[in-house]
Amino acid sequence: MTFIRETVITSLDPAGNVHVAPMGATVVAGGYILAPFRPSRTLDNLLATRCAVVNVTDDVRVYAGCVTGRRRDWPTVPAERIRGAVLDGALAHEEIEVTAIEDDAMRPRLTCRPVHLVNHRPFRGFNRAQAAVVEGAILVSRLHLLPPEKIDREVEYLSIAIGKTAGPVELEAWGWLMDRIAEHRAGTGNAA
Amino acid sequence: MTFIRETVITSLDPAGNVHVAPMGATVVAGGYILAPFRPSRTLDNLLATRCAVVNVTDDVRVYAGCVTGRRRDWPTVPAERIRGAVLDGALAHEEIEVTAIEDDAMRPRLTCRPVHLVNHRPFRGFNRAQAAVVEGAILVSRLHLLPPEKIDREVEYLSIAIGKTAGPVELEAWGWLMDRIAEHRAGTGNAA
Repeated sequence: MTFIRETVITSLDPAGNVHVAPMGATVVAGGYILAPFRPSRTLDNLLATRCAVVNVTDDVRVYAGCVTGRRRDWPTVPAERIRGAVLDGALAHEEIEVTAIEDDAMRPRLTCRPVHLVNHRPFRGFNRAQAAVVEGAILVSRLHLLPPEKIDREVEYLSIAIGKTAGPVELEAWGWLMDRIAEHRAGTGNAA
Repeated sequence: MTFIRETVITSLDPAGNVHVAPMGATVVAGGYILAPFRPSRTLDNLLATRCAVVNVTDDVRVYAGCVTGRRRDWPTVPAERIRGAVLDGALAHEEIEVTAIEDDAMRPRLTCRPVHLVNHRPFRGFNRAQAAVVEGAILVSRLHLLPPEKIDREVEYLSIAIGKTAGPVELEAWGWLMDRIAEHRAGTGNAA
């Protein structure tokens, strides 16, 4: 049993450049395990700086923007206890430090402990369209691994929640995902 | 475009008995529209008392427990500004008042305005299994309308997120939903 939160990790390189990346964070006793696939700027940054921020946002354009490459420059504000960046508008954020590294050629595992948790704004409740965008973003990040009919089937299913429950933010995010799938099929565009 | 939050509505009858019910809340300018299908205790309570609480919780057992009938007695604490009940452990809650009623034989529409919003605890981020339980709860509430093969297909799809990302709370909730589907097929058990 593995409880995983689909978070947005913000990290800094040694020069202070911010990198924003959606990433599953496995919840373990005393913190998280992050396991980015190589190559990964988040991995490079965490190995160099030994800290990062776990952001909680209900703006699902951050997920869709990053995995499609459509938009990565999400505004941030400085973290409070570590040298880091917090997504502007995050509902909550947690500043973390790397405490152990289990190296791996494909997918190193970084154990992280929380340093500081901040509750900025109330979560306003589950929205099916937001969940569909998160699922769609995971799908888009795996396009090169999936058969076209599986992609079609999942998009068809997720579209129902989009059609029934999305607001403008969710529709914009979903549009970016659909554009990326179309580009993938046309053999154009940038990989995520 | 209709942005809908999948919330948990707590309402009181005139005697003060608490009723807990998951319900979609359509976000409109100045508040929400709630549109419960008749018969509905939430509807009866809102018509009688003209107020309720919109609860935000990440304990998805509340959704699964209510729609399956497995557990409805979720603990509450008194609301702050209205005569109402707040789910104990809610991440946030909003106290609302009914401002307009558009009656309908099947599905009246209640326009509600927010009175008071409270942020109790930080939301810790999207979890695919929690979203799958919410989708599964909606599925279970519509079992009598759906062909068996559609139910099978959705359960199969949602099970993937459960298997990959659920913690004990989500597994318990998912188990209740699966039990209810099995009962439905066996023609036993109570309707939700």
